[in-house]
Amino acid sequence: MNPVKFREIKNEIRLIGIDDAPFVPRKEGTTRLFGVVFRGRLWVEGVLQTTIMVDGLDSTQKITEMILNSPHYGQLRVIMLAGITFGGFNVVDVNEIFEKTHLPIIVVCEKQPDLESIKIAIQNTSNWEERWQLIEKSGPLYEYFPKPSVKNPIFFQITGLDLKDAKQILRISIGVSAFPEPLRVAHMIGRSFLPTK
Amino acid sequence: MNPVKFREIKNEIRLIGIDDAPFVPRKEGTTRLFGVVFRGRLWVEGVLQTTIMVDGLDSTQKITEMILNSPHYGQLRVIMLAGITFGGFNVVDVNEIFEKTHLPIIVVCEKQPDLESIKIAIQNTSNWEERWQLIEKSGPLYEYFPKPSVKNPIFFQITGLDLKDAKQILRISIGVSAFPEPLRVAHMIGRSFLPTK
Repeated sequence: MNPVKFREIKNEIRLIGIDDAPFVPRKEGTTRLFGVVFRGRLWVEGVLQTTIMVDGLDSTQKITEMILNSPHYGQLRVIMLAGITFGGFNVVDVNEIFEKTHLPIIVVCEKQPDLESIKIAIQNTSNWEERWQLIEKSGPLYEYFPKPSVKNPIFFQITGLDLKDAKQILRISIGVSAFPEPLRVAHMIGRSFLPTK
Repeated sequence: MNPVKFREIKNEIRLIGIDDAPFVPRKEGTTRLFGVVFRGRLWVEGVLQTTIMVDGLDSTQKITEMILNSPHYGQLRVIMLAGITFGGFNVVDVNEIFEKTHLPIIVVCEKQPDLESIKIAIQNTSNWEERWQLIEKSGPLYEYFPKPSVKNPIFFQITGLDLKDAKQILRISIGVSAFPEPLRVAHMIGRSFLPTK
C-alpha cells in the first residue's frame, strides 16, 4: 500500500496513542491496552481499551479491531505505538495494521531498543522466528530531538507515511514532556493498574 | 475544620477529578474509580485508581486512601468529584474526605440531581438512612454557567472552600467542553471499560 500523503497537518490532528498496562512477565495471562485519542497535543477526545495475551500473538488483531470498531475511526489520522511489542513479546505487525486501517503508524521509544538482547530473549517464546520477523520488518529506527532543552533524542519508526510528515506529527504531538502526549497519557492510565503499596 | 483560603489560584493549579467506571447496577460486585491529576485544564500529570463496592459504603475510605497514598498528594490543591455517589449508591462523605486530606472538594454534576427520586431509590439499599444523611450533609447546590456559548448551567457543591474560589477553580478547569477537564478525562477512562459491541 502506498504511504499516506498529508496535504496539511493541523495542530488539532486526531492521533491515537497506544500503550499497555503492567503485567506479570513470562506468565500466561492477559494485559490491557489503552488507546488515547488526542487532538494533537491539546486535549483528550476519547479512551479505547482492549485486552491481549502476555507473550501472545494477538496484538495486531486486537489493535486493529479496537480502532476499526471505535466511533473515532473516521476522524483518526495517525496511530502512535509505545514500542513495537506489548504484553512482553506480543509483537505488532505494523504493516498489517496499516493495510487494515489505512492509518499510518509511528512507533515511538524513549530509549534505543537493544535488538541483540531482544533477539536472545525472544527465543524463549513460542513461534519466535515469526515474532523476530515482525520486528525486522518494522523498518529503520530514526532519532528525533523533541526540544532544545532536552539533550537526548527519542527514537521512532514509520509505516505508511514519509519521514518529513512523521517528524511534523511528532512536533505537534509533544507538549509538556519530551514524549508525545497521546502516548504519555496512555502510559499513565496503564500505570494506574500498579498496586500503590 | 475551617475552609481553605487560597491566596492565589494559578492556571496550573493541581486538581484531581474522580469518576467511576460502568458497573452492573443493583448487583453485588465492584467497580473502579479513576482519579485524573490535571494541571488546571492544561495537561494530565497522573492517573490514580481504586476499587469500590457497588452500592457499598466504602467510597469515602477508598478515595481518601487513593489520594493520601499517591505521590501527587503533596502538590494537590482541590478534589473534584463527578457527583456524590459512585458505583450506584456508594455515597461519599465529603466532610470526612476534607478532614482527612485537608483538600477542599467541588462536587460537579452535568444535570441537577433529582433528590426526590434518589430518596425513593436509595431506600432499596442497606443502611439507607446513613446514605441519605451523607447526601443531606453535602451542602447546597449551586449553578455555574461554563461559557457564553453554552445555555445550560452545570451544578456544583462545595466543601472546605468558599464559593468565589470554587467558581474560579471551575473557570480554570473547564477547557474544550462545558465540564471540568479532570472529570471529563476520568469519565472517558471509565467508559473505556464498556464493551464496544
